[in-house]
Amino acid sequence: MFKKIAIFGVGLIGGSFALALKKAGAVEQVVGVGRQLETLQRAQELGIIDAIAGSVADAVAGAELILIAAPVAQTGAILASIAPHLQAGTIVTDAGSTKSDVVLAARATLGGKIAQFVPGHPIAGREQNGPEAALAELYVGKKVVLAPLPENGEQDIARVAAAWQQCGALIHRLSPQQHDAVFAAVSHLPHVLAYALVDDIANKPHAASLFQYAASGFRDFTRIAGSSPEMWRDISLANQAALLGELDAYLLQLTRLRGLLAAGDGPALEAVYSNAQQARHSWISAIEAAEQQNKEGGD
Amino acid sequence: MFKKIAIFGVGLIGGSFALALKKAGAVEQVVGVGRQLETLQRAQELGIIDAIAGSVADAVAGAELILIAAPVAQTGAILASIAPHLQAGTIVTDAGSTKSDVVLAARATLGGKIAQFVPGHPIAGREQNGPEAALAELYVGKKVVLAPLPENGEQDIARVAAAWQQCGALIHRLSPQQHDAVFAAVSHLPHVLAYALVDDIANKPHAASLFQYAASGFRDFTRIAGSSPEMWRDISLANQAALLGELDAYLLQLTRLRGLLAAGDGPALEAVYSNAQQARHSWISAIEAAEQQNKEGGD
Repeated sequence: MFKKIAIFGVGLIGGSFALALKKAGAVEQVVGVGRQLETLQRAQELGIIDAIAGSVADAVAGAELILIAAPVAQTGAILASIAPHLQAGTIVTDAGSTKSDVVLAARATLGGKIAQFVPGHPIAGREQNGPEAALAELYVGKKVVLAPLPENGEQDIARVAAAWQQCGALIHRLSPQQHDAVFAAVSHLPHVLAYALVDDIANKPHAASLFQYAASGFRDFTRIAGSSPEMWRDISLANQAALLGELDAYLLQLTRLRGLLAAGDGPALEAVYSNAQQARHSWISAIEAAEQQNKEGGD
Repeated sequence: MFKKIAIFGVGLIGGSFALALKKAGAVEQVVGVGRQLETLQRAQELGIIDAIAGSVADAVAGAELILIAAPVAQTGAILASIAPHLQAGTIVTDAGSTKSDVVLAARATLGGKIAQFVPGHPIAGREQNGPEAALAELYVGKKVVLAPLPENGEQDIARVAAAWQQCGALIHRLSPQQHDAVFAAVSHLPHVLAYALVDDIANKPHAASLFQYAASGFRDFTRIAGSSPEMWRDISLANQAALLGELDAYLLQLTRLRGLLAAGDGPALEAVYSNAQQARHSWISAIEAAEQQNKEGGD
């Protein structure tokens, strides 16, 4: 049980964390901090937070856990505002989509208090944003990656893990570098590819005619190109090195496929398509088996 | 009303055409032709076809309309088998995903009877295949692109259009070249990109760990990589020239984006993402408005 939790950013991610912990009876008081008073008021009306902090100092004072769930580019500034008020015994964690840059920012701002920061990333989301989109069930059966630092105490890591587990999440551990390499491949690169395709088509002189014939395959393929441009600009830059590596590997792959197509090499093209189809099929089967197990194991 | 329609390939596409026309009371007899007797028997049990043709000659004799709904690479061979039996007054159409190659094959096999072939492409599908997947409602509100030849009579084009309209489809007209250019951009290229990404990830030494963290965005982005490798090998080769053009344009676009990322040019990256997001949003809004209109206009 947490007596007081402070949440910086009471939108979908922070709001769902608060709702889930409240539903589990795992927290007495949730205090919200943010740049827009209106959003905080809305979160309070919705029962997500119990109080709006008058200042960062007030928010941090006496908090056992602080979650930073604001856009990832703001993490450094938020940590800097927290640092002077951070008491021993308070754990800070975050929900950012990138980790190496967050760790850099944390080291620069928290200095000697770095052991109190346990980096994290819940792998969950919805199309909608803001406190209205928050759901107590958002994290049920979802993964939360913790990317602890060598300085973190195991007890503090366990405390953050326990909070997410009370939201229904499954805890995974990766180093910040591993985390960023993994998500560059399976999340950040696909976003760039989808944005690139839609922008490419939208800039053609006959774009309107092209879009007219786009169907459900295109709709699903480009769904992630409907995501926030600001957020993805920040993620792209925050994970620049790993993303460049994945992008280069993909450009090579695509150039190789172009060669097969230009040569009319049907068997080689089919081998690539077939390998992809089988890999995706195995992946989907594994997901479905895990979901089934979660259901059976749950109550 | 059609007295007799012959369908080559009684799976999802051909089977749904038959079911829709039967439901509309627009056909007296549907005869099925195919390579696998078992599939034809299943289609007959399901009420998709009324009879299994003993030979191509039997199927074609007295048919007012012939639909070729087999894999697109078989179109040439099927047309060649039809040609010697094709009577004046019978119209042949197809459902292939590419049109220029189909027209080439039709000219080579039908010769002086080319005016009787009206190329077509219904823009509809499901994950499942085979006669069991066929639905009388598959084409309701969906587009069917007709790509008529200069030799086609307007009356014959209208007869094919009317059949699809009785299935609930909306008729569009493009030249075979326009058709292939459009679908290279909005369908064939996305398939290649999705196959390329999944194959790329599947071939990495740590593929299992990567797939473990892939979430719903990845799932949607790669859904089309679950499609039939044989079918997409054939489509890739059949539409080689247009697909190479789109692939080259995309490689340029991606190389440009790579440059922006390497330079850390946040505003330029955001401009690309934002243009894509807005274009996709407008497209989705237009689709939803059209669907609403279809619903209100329908009975």
